[in-house]
Amino acid sequence: MKTVTCTAPVNIAVIKYWGKRDETLILPLNDSISFTLSQDEMCAKTTISISPTFKEDKFWLNGKEESLENPRIQNCLKEVRRRASKRKHESGVEGTLNWHIHICSKNNFPTAAGLASSAAGYACLVYALGQVYGIEGDLSSVARQGSGSACRSIYGGLVQWYKGEEDDGTDSVARPIAPPGHFPDLRVVICVANDGRKKTGSTIGMRRTVLTSRLMQYRIQESVISRTAAMIKAIKEKDWSEFCDLTMADSNEMHAVCQDTSPPCVYMNDTSHTVAALIHQYNDVKTASGNVNHKVCYTFDAGPNACLFVPGAVVGELLGLLMRAFPPSPTQNTDTYITGIPTQPTDLTRELKSLADEDGQPTGKLKYLIHTKVGDGPRDLTDSSASLLDLSTGLPKQEDGNGVSP
Amino acid sequence: MKTVTCTAPVNIAVIKYWGKRDETLILPLNDSISFTLSQDEMCAKTTISISPTFKEDKFWLNGKEESLENPRIQNCLKEVRRRASKRKHESGVEGTLNWHIHICSKNNFPTAAGLASSAAGYACLVYALGQVYGIEGDLSSVARQGSGSACRSIYGGLVQWYKGEEDDGTDSVARPIAPPGHFPDLRVVICVANDGRKKTGSTIGMRRTVLTSRLMQYRIQESVISRTAAMIKAIKEKDWSEFCDLTMADSNEMHAVCQDTSPPCVYMNDTSHTVAALIHQYNDVKTASGNVNHKVCYTFDAGPNACLFVPGAVVGELLGLLMRAFPPSPTQNTDTYITGIPTQPTDLTRELKSLADEDGQPTGKLKYLIHTKVGDGPRDLTDSSASLLDLSTGLPKQEDGNGVSP
Repeated sequence: MKTVTCTAPVNIAVIKYWGKRDETLILPLNDSISFTLSQDEMCAKTTISISPTFKEDKFWLNGKEESLENPRIQNCLKEVRRRASKRKHESGVEGTLNWHIHICSKNNFPTAAGLASSAAGYACLVYALGQVYGIEGDLSSVARQGSGSACRSIYGGLVQWYKGEEDDGTDSVARPIAPPGHFPDLRVVICVANDGRKKTGSTIGMRRTVLTSRLMQYRIQESVISRTAAMIKAIKEKDWSEFCDLTMADSNEMHAVCQDTSPPCVYMNDTSHTVAALIHQYNDVKTASGNVNHKVCYTFDAGPNACLFVPGAVVGELLGLLMRAFPPSPTQNTDTYITGIPTQPTDLTRELKSLADEDGQPTGKLKYLIHTKVGDGPRDLTDSSASLLDLSTGLPKQEDGNGVSP
Repeated sequence: MKTVTCTAPVNIAVIKYWGKRDETLILPLNDSISFTLSQDEMCAKTTISISPTFKEDKFWLNGKEESLENPRIQNCLKEVRRRASKRKHESGVEGTLNWHIHICSKNNFPTAAGLASSAAGYACLVYALGQVYGIEGDLSSVARQGSGSACRSIYGGLVQWYKGEEDDGTDSVARPIAPPGHFPDLRVVICVANDGRKKTGSTIGMRRTVLTSRLMQYRIQESVISRTAAMIKAIKEKDWSEFCDLTMADSNEMHAVCQDTSPPCVYMNDTSHTVAALIHQYNDVKTASGNVNHKVCYTFDAGPNACLFVPGAVVGELLGLLMRAFPPSPTQNTDTYITGIPTQPTDLTRELKSLADEDGQPTGKLKYLIHTKVGDGPRDLTDSSASLLDLSTGLPKQEDGNGVSP
């Protein structure tokens, strides 16, 4: 039996992926750029065992046994095994390719929070498969076939996913463009919205936008191309103010083409829009006092949660502002409302207090905040105690609190 | 003393006006098309008196004395007087042009409902000025200088506002393109949302969109031009299904460019989006049973209220659906919730019941519904009892319930 355990991060796009040119290979209509987030606060974890004694392939996800028949998982598995078989003479994996596989995955962050867990999940699965079969080289194009944005979670820091030109998708890969510390002391605050509304899944939503939105044609052919170039320039020049403006513009444009879809795909809700308005007002205050490096920016994926990029120097102030504008529910205290990197919300100036009060919401509009930072790519955990599978049986550990019975 | 009393209708655009090419003359960046609504349910009413004995110009709006210094009112007044003076020898208005003027205006529909009252208000003001000074010919380009969309309220039925090409705006006029009964037995249901959020005024919003939205460039240069042509074809051919699709697409596109604005202009709220989604689902049911002529469409102006165009054959069903999906607040009954043309909501099929329940909202998300229809242009009321001004004093009538003290 051979066992590996890996973790992989979540990533948040600042130039958004919305729309495919190939549904099966998951090839996007435009390049995208993302920040990979720290695995200390949010990550997917996967243990893979292969053994000649296993009777069949098995898969457990978040404590529940699932079918491995999912075509996206099968595509990833097939592609990794194909790559492994091409170099089986050097690597000594010959034979192991015929062994059955046990896969156990879970996310360490709350599910049902609307946080794209599939990116971290597929990046982790593919990275762990790569480790178990001894694959070298880029795995981003494999992860892409599990979930498009998963390819960006294969690397840390700032990552660009190239849409590529080839029909077979071989050049639709992700590459790091700046290390995690590129914008020094940058923090990330995720505002998890308490949302009761139904969603349109992003696969269906993207398809519908591509088919029905006229504005999408302009986004793809003109707008996002020039914005991506401007974003790369802003990143290279560490122009934080420009980076913020481009990030908010691209988030707004993505949600605009979703609104321009028939029927419309609506992901932001009233709370999301109130957070966005508050950030613009906060930036007005900072800009008026000349602190453009204290600018905060928001971005929203296909869900109501705001992801805020915040210079470390103002994170305490921002947390104070959010707590005042979006008071926690009566059953929460500061510690359960602000999770992640421990930071006390700082006292607000009179100006910021009145700003928060102006946008003030009833309690409970946000479930909680996750305070995290930018981080590195997937990790291979050498500590065998981290394994989600029992190293003797290859079945999920009972003591893991997984609630999985072997 | 000479006195006239006129009423003028509200209009609802199906191809939206959003963005000016000239802020002072109020010249739009694109053509727009609207339905003029019946004055039985919603209208503006204006009485104008001119007299050689008046000491000064005076203006009362919704029961409150206001300054006439507003530059938009002054522009309308100046332009009407200029036209009158050009033909003073024929019309015998010479002399009266120097008399002071008393203007008293009010809306017969609830204020603070977010229903564009300025279109009806300025159309009424300009139409009444035209009557009092004996102006003949088109007044739409004068009304336009009060409030852009007011020019469309100068005519009944379906109206097109041509953006025009001239710098002086002389060809930016409205013209009827089909009479009120063009789509026979068409009804209109306005869903007035109970909205607590702040708005961006449309003048500021339009300016911001034109300056910051990249998608707006495409809307103006490509999208809205071809959609306007398609809309005129659909209207001429009485293709109701196509008319509905184009109306919803243009509303969605307008709100998309608003979302693409920096900072975003957000006019629709969670309730608005739920109404829109319900209409799409209702249409799916109707289309599945082959009734494309029973299709309903929505359009949203720069506010959260849905305006629905509904074939008369299904208006009872739609009212039933809305009442079930958006139950009135506990203090309301059906009569205070559904205002306007009296119609009983009909019983729903099991399919529609479950559709309403799926989207079901807490009570009070909508304030009330206004059930109305398409109507004609401004009217000159010959019945002197309709006057808002006392015919002997030229001051607001006390018995009018205006709350105006003379």
